[in-house]
Formats: sequence, C-alpha cells, structure tokens
Amino acid sequence: MPEKSFDNKPLKDALTATSQAVERLMDPILAVPSGPEAKVVEAMRYSFFSGGKRLRPFLVLASAELYGVNKKQALRVAAAVECVHCYSLIHDDLPAMDDDDMRRGKPAVHKAFGEATAILAGDALMTLAFEILSEEASHPDPNIRLKLIKNLAQASGHHGMVGGQMIDLSASDHNLGEAEIYRLQQMKTGALISFSVEAGAILGHASEKALSSVHGYARDLGLAFQIADDLLDVEGDADEIGKATNKDADAGKATLVGIMGVERARKQANILANQAIEHLSDFDDKASLLRAVAHFAIFRRT
Amino acid sequence: MPEKSFDNKPLKDALTATSQAVERLMDPILAVPSGPEAKVVEAMRYSFFSGGKRLRPFLVLASAELYGVNKKQALRVAAAVECVHCYSLIHDDLPAMDDDDMRRGKPAVHKAFGEATAILAGDALMTLAFEILSEEASHPDPNIRLKLIKNLAQASGHHGMVGGQMIDLSASDHNLGEAEIYRLQQMKTGALISFSVEAGAILGHASEKALSSVHGYARDLGLAFQIADDLLDVEGDADEIGKATNKDADAGKATLVGIMGVERARKQANILANQAIEHLSDFDDKASLLRAVAHFAIFRRT
Repeated sequence: MPEKSFDNKPLKDALTATSQAVERLMDPILAVPSGPEAKVVEAMRYSFFSGGKRLRPFLVLASAELYGVNKKQALRVAAAVECVHCYSLIHDDLPAMDDDDMRRGKPAVHKAFGEATAILAGDALMTLAFEILSEEASHPDPNIRLKLIKNLAQASGHHGMVGGQMIDLSASDHNLGEAEIYRLQQMKTGALISFSVEAGAILGHASEKALSSVHGYARDLGLAFQIADDLLDVEGDADEIGKATNKDADAGKATLVGIMGVERARKQANILANQAIEHLSDFDDKASLLRAVAHFAIFRRT
Repeated sequence: MPEKSFDNKPLKDALTATSQAVERLMDPILAVPSGPEAKVVEAMRYSFFSGGKRLRPFLVLASAELYGVNKKQALRVAAAVECVHCYSLIHDDLPAMDDDDMRRGKPAVHKAFGEATAILAGDALMTLAFEILSEEASHPDPNIRLKLIKNLAQASGHHGMVGGQMIDLSASDHNLGEAEIYRLQQMKTGALISFSVEAGAILGHASEKALSSVHGYARDLGLAFQIADDLLDVEGDADEIGKATNKDADAGKATLVGIMGVERARKQANILANQAIEHLSDFDDKASLLRAVAHFAIFRRT
C-alpha cells in the first residue's frame, strides 16, 4: 500500500540527479548560434532549462538500470524524451490550444518570446529529439536506435500524444464518458510515459515478457499520475504548482475527477499506483525507485 | 543554357507520376481513425492531398534513379520529405507566423480546421516522417535509415528550416544584406531541397564524391527556386499561384529580388540554374530529369 504521505529521500535525490545530468548533457547541444536564429534556440533553452519534475527522463534512467544499460546512452534517450515533453508543453500552452500564460512558475514560452517563436521552438525541440536518438552515442546497435525512434514517433504522433490532445480539445464541445477519458489520457500523457519506461527496456535488449511487465507498470503509473494531476488542478495551490488551477473546470473539460468526484478519483489513483507496483514483482531492489515513483505520483503536491 | 520558355513533357509526366505514387502510398498510412482524434488526421490529409508541385518527392525519386535505388524504398523517403514540407507549410501559414489564409488555391489548414488543429496536424506530420523513415520498408540497411533520419532532422531543425523561418520572421524587424538573405534561404528552403536530392544518393550508397556533386546541384537549385518564388510573388498572378502575391513586400520582408531588382534577380536565377546543371556533368542521360527541373525552377509560372 502506498503510504499516506510522501517522503522518499532516495527518490528525491534521484530526481534531482536526473535533472542535473540531463541539463549538463543538453547545455552544449542547445548552444546558442550567433546568427539571428539565436532567438529560437533561446526559447528552446528557456523551456528545457525551466525545471520541472523530469519524471520522463527519470523513468528512462530508472528502467535502464533494471537492465544494466550504459548510463551515458540512457541519459541521451532521457534527454530526447524530455525534448518531446517540452515541445508538447510549449504547443499546448499556446493561445489557440490550452491558452496557459504560466508554466513552472514562469511566463509560458509564447508569453516570453512571442507565439511564432514558441511554435518554432516546439517544432525544433521535437526534431532535435529524433536527431539525438539517431546518433551512435545513443546506442551502438542501429536497430535499437531505430526501435526507439519508431516507438517515440508512435507515442508522440496522431495515434499517441497529438491524437490525445486533439480529443482533449474537442472534449470541450461534447461530454466524454469514463472509458473515453481513460483513452484520452492514455494517448495524451500515457503514451510518452509508457515510452519512457519501455525505452530503458529496449536499450537493455529486454525480453518481450519483461517489456510487457514494464508496459503494464507504465500504463497504470501514467493514469495514476494523470488523475493526481487533475486532483491538483481541483485542490492544489497555484503558487506551489506554478500554473493556474481549476483550468479544466473553467474550460468545461471532462476529467476523471469531474466524473468520479474527488474521493473516488483519489481511491482510483491509489488502486492504479498499487497495480503499477505489482507489475514490478519480478524485479528485486533495483526497481525500488520505480516503486517509489508510483507512490510519489499520487502524493505529490506539485 | 536554360531555354526561354519551359515545356518539358517528360518532366511534367514525371511530376504527375510522382504525385500519384506518393498519394497512393500515403492514403492508407493516413487512414482516418474512428475516434474523436479523426479531426487531426483529416487536417493532415487535407494538407497532404492538396496537390502542390511535389518537387521534393520528385527530387528524391530522380536522384534515387541515378543510383539504381529500389523504387518502393525511394517512394517512402519521398513521402517522408513531403510530410515535413506539408508540416512546414501548415505552421508557416498560421496567423502568428506568415498569416496566410490561402494555400494551393484553397483555405489554409487553420482556416479550414482551426488553429489548434493546424498546429497539431503539423506536429503529427513531422512525427510521421520520422516514423516512416524508421521502418525497414524504407531501406533494409539500418544505418542508411539512421543517416536519413539524422540528415532530415538536421535539415528541418533549428540549424535548418526552423532556423531559417526564425531569421525570416525577425527580418521584418531589421534589414538583411545579400549574404544574410542567401543564408536565410539556404536554411529555410534550401536545406530540405538539398536533403531531398541527397536522400537518393544516401539510399544508393553513393560515394562521398558523388554526394558532393548532388549536394552542389541541390544548393544551386534551391537558391534558383527561391529567387523564382520571390519573382512570382512580385510578378505572378494570385489566381494561378493559388496564394496571395506581394506578401513579402507587404510584410516588409527582405528578399533577393527586393535587393537586386527584378532584372538582376532573374539573371542570378539563370546563373544558378546553369551552375546546378554543371554539377551533374558526371552523370549521363539518367540525370536528364534533374537537369530539366533546374530549367523548370526558373521558368515556372506557379
């Protein structure tokens, strides 16, 4: 059973270390050029280096550890996933999309750099993710790199994240049922979280069985995380979270919390976190951080 | 010397055949799903199947022919490049960017589907390009697929197309000199045109020397094409072209035609087209379509 409060120092340390390592790797990759195109790279840096939980990079590294993957390689894949995540935040915040002015306690990219630059910065971050994955430093086996590229594309594209955002945007117009919201979440945020966990297994040449365990873990974790996110939107403190709250209700968006109510949603998140942890039963202590993050998912405050 | 008028039936036939083949390939790949995410796929289809010259796919196929590349493989790469081209048109047309309401004689994607869907359709088309390239059907050698992915990412990202669009957008604020405009064009449209020509050579395991010939051809062709585009913007008929004319001058944008004047620009396009053709001197009749397209670049009316 997840505890009633969350204080896991090893996990906190691991999240901090992940953040630092990913930023060290990306600093030279996102070097600002001297020409007038500098502005778009500054916007990319503004987004990438603006903190955040680094959940997805952490999941890549933690799952890579299960399979004894070379850390430098896992870190590059972790950075690529974070590039895609940052691109999706930049585009989702645009006025035409979710119209969010604040992100991580700072003005959103389009508020700081203008809309055109924000669109381009998102485009370039996504492109950069695929460039990073294509390079030999990400894994010596070309077929592994190609599998990562293909799975990341599928998780991000119209059958994954983009499709989920499309459903979410049209959900303001019509009500969705519980099953439809699950599917939306699965696509919009679940697919990239699942990819993050699977990436470690792919890097480690994991068997199909092991892949399906981490897949089950990732699916339940992603949903638990999303419900917790919706609960924070309803109950959280905007100052602590760094973005506006009650956005979903204001936008007339259908969420599981809206349908289930706060109590049932919190129970459901708990069940999902426990289920996620059960998927890891074949792994020993090496999976302790992945177990801890399932607790964190539902007890976080930001 | 390019002729004074353009009427090359083999080239016209090849462009038509390219268009048909690329559309046949993409039709099932862009199958519309049954869920509410269908809208984004419809917007992707609207963009992809809206005609256009199919110059980039044609260049992939024509250069692949120089190296005897399997046609089915070349066609997949051609389609991937066209996905990137379509994504760039959708995003460039957005109100926050170039604010173009018409494209290829029809309402731009954001006019037909709304801005949010247009942003997402562009995102998903770009993602799809990398997915297509990652698959074995694009080439049996994984290292070839990875080279295509890496080069396409570099041509499209902040050092290529996106960087060029960033310079172009900031160019409304300050005047650019001739050298800076050449660099802008090289990045904004030249990089993807170069990639298209190089892709055929990469698929065909071309030598470094052969790669550098086609690279020189592609660079000069890209610039000639861009000057011709600017000339059309000044002199063309909006009905024939299918989009508004005099946009650049209205937007205060610096173009080579603006700096050189119409006469010198036309001469320069001519010189570039001839230079492009000279780069192909090592190739026999197999390069006749590539030579023809260099003529077409400067004598086209749309």
